[in-house]
Amino acid sequence: MGRKGMLLVGHGSKLPYNKELIETTAGIIAKKTDEYLVKPGFMSLNTPTVEDQLEAFRKEDIEMLVVVPLFLAKGVHINKDIPELLGLPEGGRHGTFQLNGKTVPLVYASPIGSDPLLAELMLKNASDAIAELKS
Amino acid sequence: MGRKGMLLVGHGSKLPYNKELIETTAGIIAKKTDEYLVKPGFMSLNTPTVEDQLEAFRKEDIEMLVVVPLFLAKGVHINKDIPELLGLPEGGRHGTFQLNGKTVPLVYASPIGSDPLLAELMLKNASDAIAELKS
Repeated sequence: MGRKGMLLVGHGSKLPYNKELIETTAGIIAKKTDEYLVKPGFMSLNTPTVEDQLEAFRKEDIEMLVVVPLFLAKGVHINKDIPELLGLPEGGRHGTFQLNGKTVPLVYASPIGSDPLLAELMLKNASDAIAELKS
Repeated sequence: MGRKGMLLVGHGSKLPYNKELIETTAGIIAKKTDEYLVKPGFMSLNTPTVEDQLEAFRKEDIEMLVVVPLFLAKGVHINKDIPELLGLPEGGRHGTFQLNGKTVPLVYASPIGSDPLLAELMLKNASDAIAELKS
């Protein structure tokens, strides 16, 4: 089995923080697992764009492309703008992706959403801030 | 020791998804721990507002107020707008909060930021989407 591609999609921002977040998270994922070849791409304002990275993935030997939006929740970008860039219908979750000479499945994952891991992260941020106060 | 208050701050949105995310996450945190009395509040577009919930916390018996922004990353809201609502200087992380008849510490936590838990959540969302394709 070959590797899967993971396109980690960020919103993009004029400020540096969104880009940093997406790129650092892509780096953490890449270090954590060999299952995915991870590339970060931005919907607007930053580069590489989603389109740039789709083109870059066409040259890779991957068995599937998983598009993971690093967004908090659904909204117009998740429901409409990103599917458009992926050639999916609105609300579409599965399609195909053309590599050089072969077609592989394309899967569009959900944004963060409410998840026990997110609750845990909020508790961690709260504890860290309290620890900083006490130190 | 009494409980701490946690004000979980959301951006707010015309669409229902941000409000749902913040309220559901507040519920998960409340179920998970007795350490905090959790109230969700919104910066704009939804209610209860941050100001509403600050007023509500003044009536509670808490030993500290921790304000945790459920935002992806720093930006104008995190650096400037929320501190203003909390009476903190720009970049400020610690202050005081007036309850009815006593003053307690106020702590302003960081937004999500790059964290191994966020990377784990992205991997989970990717796996879930792939599992859905195969089912």
